[in-house]
Amino acid sequence: VLTANQIKSLTALQLKKYRIEQGKFLVEGEKIVAELLQQTKFRVSVVYATGAWIDKQPKMQTAILDLIHEVTEAELKKISSLTTPNQVAAVVDLPQEKPNLEALEAGLYYYLDGLQDPSNMGAILRIADWFGVKGVFCSQNTVDAYHPKVIQAGMGAFLRVPTYEVDLLTLKNANPTWNILGAVMNGEKISANSQLSNGILVIGNEGRGISKETELLLTHRLTIPRGAGGGAESLNAAVATGILTFGLLQV
Amino acid sequence: VLTANQIKSLTALQLKKYRIEQGKFLVEGEKIVAELLQQTKFRVSVVYATGAWIDKQPKMQTAILDLIHEVTEAELKKISSLTTPNQVAAVVDLPQEKPNLEALEAGLYYYLDGLQDPSNMGAILRIADWFGVKGVFCSQNTVDAYHPKVIQAGMGAFLRVPTYEVDLLTLKNANPTWNILGAVMNGEKISANSQLSNGILVIGNEGRGISKETELLLTHRLTIPRGAGGGAESLNAAVATGILTFGLLQV
Repeated sequence: VLTANQIKSLTALQLKKYRIEQGKFLVEGEKIVAELLQQTKFRVSVVYATGAWIDKQPKMQTAILDLIHEVTEAELKKISSLTTPNQVAAVVDLPQEKPNLEALEAGLYYYLDGLQDPSNMGAILRIADWFGVKGVFCSQNTVDAYHPKVIQAGMGAFLRVPTYEVDLLTLKNANPTWNILGAVMNGEKISANSQLSNGILVIGNEGRGISKETELLLTHRLTIPRGAGGGAESLNAAVATGILTFGLLQV
Repeated sequence: VLTANQIKSLTALQLKKYRIEQGKFLVEGEKIVAELLQQTKFRVSVVYATGAWIDKQPKMQTAILDLIHEVTEAELKKISSLTTPNQVAAVVDLPQEKPNLEALEAGLYYYLDGLQDPSNMGAILRIADWFGVKGVFCSQNTVDAYHPKVIQAGMGAFLRVPTYEVDLLTLKNANPTWNILGAVMNGEKISANSQLSNGILVIGNEGRGISKETELLLTHRLTIPRGAGGGAESLNAAVATGILTFGLLQV
């Protein structure tokens, strides 16, 4: 059973302010929670689950069993940010680890420059997770990586792809020789020979694209070539990220 | 001023059933409506606009002026399917034209096999519009191409990319020699040498992927290679479509 105070404190986790205040975020859905319970990097403090979910589980370790708190489907719905009902939700500690920006391993990183749509961010984290992108840096005005819809659309990417809020200038100062790549109008067409698998790929805001200040820091201005007869003005931010990553990494 | 009956009939356009019954769909937002008023392929029957929008317009032709019906922002909100307020919405005739499946021009087409999310479909139509994909065929269980969120996310793609509901078997029977390409687990890795710019690219449902029956019709089983260290199980449907299209078209 959930008390009114518990429900209040759990629904508050839908807002960044309270996630930071409580140092927690909520992870919903059977698939992600199953993944979550199999790893040790993220600390789970409690799992709210229906009896139906609990009955379905294989034999669990006592340490995990102790985390599980049975609730009704109606209670779960009250704490959920999703429209489709779930069987299980976990409360997870926000990671506190900060990367050493001067000692990042080589490879491709993303910098999200004011990205707003949580579904786009989730899809982008999933791309990062697919292609082995090393980490995702976020400008301060980017949607929070622990927004429930980001977690949902990211399909467990947060378990493998580290995210960190930092501005691009700080990042560049720590790694002055790195490539900073961004898609712009009239840039160099990316192709099978782009060979730029190290550095930071900047992904702009859905409407405005890359900000003026960020654009000044780009070392490579890239463009996804339009097809013959193509009429669209732009691509969805996550779609563009996928194409650029595929083009750059030459996997 | 909008009457209660007009509001009822306009909000009904959010549902496919009533779009078909009325033979109309709704297009919202300044950018798409501006594009709409500059073309002749789609017939606009009325434009509902605020005084602020009307005042901003450059000199318009009488034929267009006659379509415009001034409403308040509050009225516009009542007929809108969007959460963010708009200045203008147009009622447009659903296209009645049916393609001759036996006489399709060569090039790349999409077949959406049970795609559900309207934002994904909009993003996919935008990809088609960017790369000059010739047309998008939709299975009967795919979200409707004139769903308001598809129109919104498609950013005007409907003006240039024809969509048509048809099953893949009918399409294949009409074009028995065509390539039918689809992304599956353990397929051939797409790369810079894929050279498959003609045929039909099948895009599966967000959760289930390509259906069993459809998979039997594939002539080419493709896979987007995962990067080193990549852990994601799959990519978002629109992201995968973007990468596959870029890989196949060699633009």
